[in-house]
Amino acid sequence: MKGMFITFEGPEGGGKSTQIKLLAKRLKAAGRRVMITREPGGTPTGELIRDVLQHNKSGEALLPETELLLFEASRAQLVRKVILPAIQKGVVVLCDRFFDSTTAYQGYGRGMDLKGIDTMNRVAAGRAVPGLTILIDVSHSTGFGRLRRRNHAMKTGHDRIERENRSFHQRVRRGFIRIARENPGRIKVVDGSRDLKALEADIWKIVKRCLP
Amino acid sequence: MKGMFITFEGPEGGGKSTQIKLLAKRLKAAGRRVMITREPGGTPTGELIRDVLQHNKSGEALLPETELLLFEASRAQLVRKVILPAIQKGVVVLCDRFFDSTTAYQGYGRGMDLKGIDTMNRVAAGRAVPGLTILIDVSHSTGFGRLRRRNHAMKTGHDRIERENRSFHQRVRRGFIRIARENPGRIKVVDGSRDLKALEADIWKIVKRCLP
Repeated sequence: MKGMFITFEGPEGGGKSTQIKLLAKRLKAAGRRVMITREPGGTPTGELIRDVLQHNKSGEALLPETELLLFEASRAQLVRKVILPAIQKGVVVLCDRFFDSTTAYQGYGRGMDLKGIDTMNRVAAGRAVPGLTILIDVSHSTGFGRLRRRNHAMKTGHDRIERENRSFHQRVRRGFIRIARENPGRIKVVDGSRDLKALEADIWKIVKRCLP
Repeated sequence: MKGMFITFEGPEGGGKSTQIKLLAKRLKAAGRRVMITREPGGTPTGELIRDVLQHNKSGEALLPETELLLFEASRAQLVRKVILPAIQKGVVVLCDRFFDSTTAYQGYGRGMDLKGIDTMNRVAAGRAVPGLTILIDVSHSTGFGRLRRRNHAMKTGHDRIERENRSFHQRVRRGFIRIARENPGRIKVVDGSRDLKALEADIWKIVKRCLP
């Protein structure tokens, strides 16, 4: 059977990782080999880069440009060492966020140059352009409401951060929608406010149609 | 006094690091504050990245795209944390290789997409465009002849590598010359086959004219 590359995108709290696991189950039940990957990391070099990004032991703050380039470096390695070889072997690769998240968060969210990000995405991803992207769209209040319930033990400080970042997350969401409009063939938008089972069925219907 | 950003570029064995030290002495004698930097590294984060690039403890081979993006990430951090603040304070910053080396080695040498590299260089360097670039041009035989003499204890295996890479290094050299032709205002080409003292005098003449 032929492999395929499917990415999941969208704002926080849409249920991406849950839906990826559910889709993986369905695909396996349908006799497909499946691999789930995540950025940054996924390769020995990517793990070293992830370390610099997340627990920079030097204590130095990363600049937005440095962060962006490190993400892309981790992606370049993951794509060529893991994703492309797996697809070649007939595996369906499911990736929790990929280059559309870079465009949405760094580009639309932080206001970095969209053309520059696009070029970097293309260099890093190379031939690994997703055959299908599921964009789980969800409003800020629904998404963060879910995150809050999931992390119900969380300190109240979270609400402050959430409020401060509301406009950022709204720019990110609008960014995702624009990216979807510009790539109607590749990106299918699903409604992340639907319940888990209904959303799972929506996604499976789309994926079934696209499977090679 | 106003600061300035001067980069040194060119093929191997042209004498860049020696000339940078000599220029730094001249500048200090002329009452200037001077800083010498080098890529990759120069910041705590850059040192972590340098580690991934040079002694990748995972043992995994870096792909050309990953290598390129890690270089640019280190550059993005160095530029904003070290180079731009120093220039702002009136320091003359001398950098041993900068973005023209990326274009020459990765672009002309390895054949990676020049437009992509150009975009990445611009994102990483931001406002740190060199006010002056000294390109020390030197032929493959002269440059590697010098390296051989400098490393006279080196095993004979080096000759094999050198022979194998001759066409690569020739593409790099031609690349540098093209970059210089496309940036005649910023890049001054000097003849690296001249002796150390003569070359020093040539470079000082150019730098004196450009100092703010």
